[in-house]
Amino acid sequence: MVEGAKSVAELLASDFVIETVVGTDVFLASHAKVLGERGVEAVAASEIELAAAGSYQTNQAALAVARMRPNQLPQIASGDYVLVLDDIRDPGNLGTIVRTADWYGIAAIIASPETADFYNPKTIAASMGSFARVQVYYAALPDFLSSRHVVYGAFLDGTDVRTTHWNTAGGCIVIGNEANGISTDVARCVSHRITIPRTGRAESLNAAIATAVVLDNLRRSL
Amino acid sequence: MVEGAKSVAELLASDFVIETVVGTDVFLASHAKVLGERGVEAVAASEIELAAAGSYQTNQAALAVARMRPNQLPQIASGDYVLVLDDIRDPGNLGTIVRTADWYGIAAIIASPETADFYNPKTIAASMGSFARVQVYYAALPDFLSSRHVVYGAFLDGTDVRTTHWNTAGGCIVIGNEANGISTDVARCVSHRITIPRTGRAESLNAAIATAVVLDNLRRSL
Repeated sequence: MVEGAKSVAELLASDFVIETVVGTDVFLASHAKVLGERGVEAVAASEIELAAAGSYQTNQAALAVARMRPNQLPQIASGDYVLVLDDIRDPGNLGTIVRTADWYGIAAIIASPETADFYNPKTIAASMGSFARVQVYYAALPDFLSSRHVVYGAFLDGTDVRTTHWNTAGGCIVIGNEANGISTDVARCVSHRITIPRTGRAESLNAAIATAVVLDNLRRSL
Repeated sequence: MVEGAKSVAELLASDFVIETVVGTDVFLASHAKVLGERGVEAVAASEIELAAAGSYQTNQAALAVARMRPNQLPQIASGDYVLVLDDIRDPGNLGTIVRTADWYGIAAIIASPETADFYNPKTIAASMGSFARVQVYYAALPDFLSSRHVVYGAFLDGTDVRTTHWNTAGGCIVIGNEANGISTDVARCVSHRITIPRTGRAESLNAAIATAVVLDNLRRSL
């Protein structure tokens, strides 16, 4: 289920199979063309009805039900960077990571089986529409990483992310669990341990924040 | 109210006036020295009692009640950078920003009156103990900024944050509201409009994410 005008508009522009769109008259009228082209069932409802049907109280001009994608490895081209999430448990964090990945041009995320559900309403909402452009594939990370040779991982004791040499042929970037960081089994697959330099005194950074800073540093070079 | 062993330990190490600490026998024993030095009332409780008393179900080895600080302008030295928040409404976002500021050595945050409450339990929890080291002062931003001459602001159409010249004598960095960005009245006080370059297709970044990326770029230079 996708909620809110912006997210439903992004869904309509994506290749997700859409079952139903419920929207206000204004929303349905302003998206009549794409609804017609896609042959989606459209149901009119009031804002009050939409707010009652959804999980959130605000931004209720539309709701949609779409089919989940099959859990498939996304296409990864030479030069692509892939984000690898080792047990990101918080759905809001996952959604923020999806949004951030989309900002930095990362189209594929590989997530451990314990990572939060991509289709959790909080994840979809926090992604602010980026769920439609970023593909998440759930897999056992040691299996996935065993065939990968360039694997960066964010640790508290690696080399400075500002001077990291980023492989021009692409690679993986592993972000660890909110409380425990990267697990031992996954850490064994990491070829480049990197760290965000700290000026102050906080013990660590939020996982989505660390993702953004690492990707910003990557995109300075590549 | 401060919840969780880590946050209560940070509180005990801070200059907040503490009314009461409720903790498990193990927590109280391992913090007996500081509790005695500070003359804090300590009450023993089981983990089940602590979980029932707090807002969160996990990490309940301790709870504390402390006095809020008066709303005072923090000391700002020459060379210091100050973070300015223009209506950050989400308490979790605010807490993540406090944690991120602490990581990057920013000790003072000026927040608009509409910004979420620093003492909201979600803010305290998301700050992961950094609430004890970062001071937040609520004030009308145009008044505060009127006497400031070096004011960077994060917009979608500014100059590249990667090539920004950062003033060595310090300055302010303004981060705008989650949905609407920096308001018109505050934008008038901005002397340097900066932007985080985008590689992909997301429309915008989460406010806490933008804060982190800007501060990381600042700390590359200063």
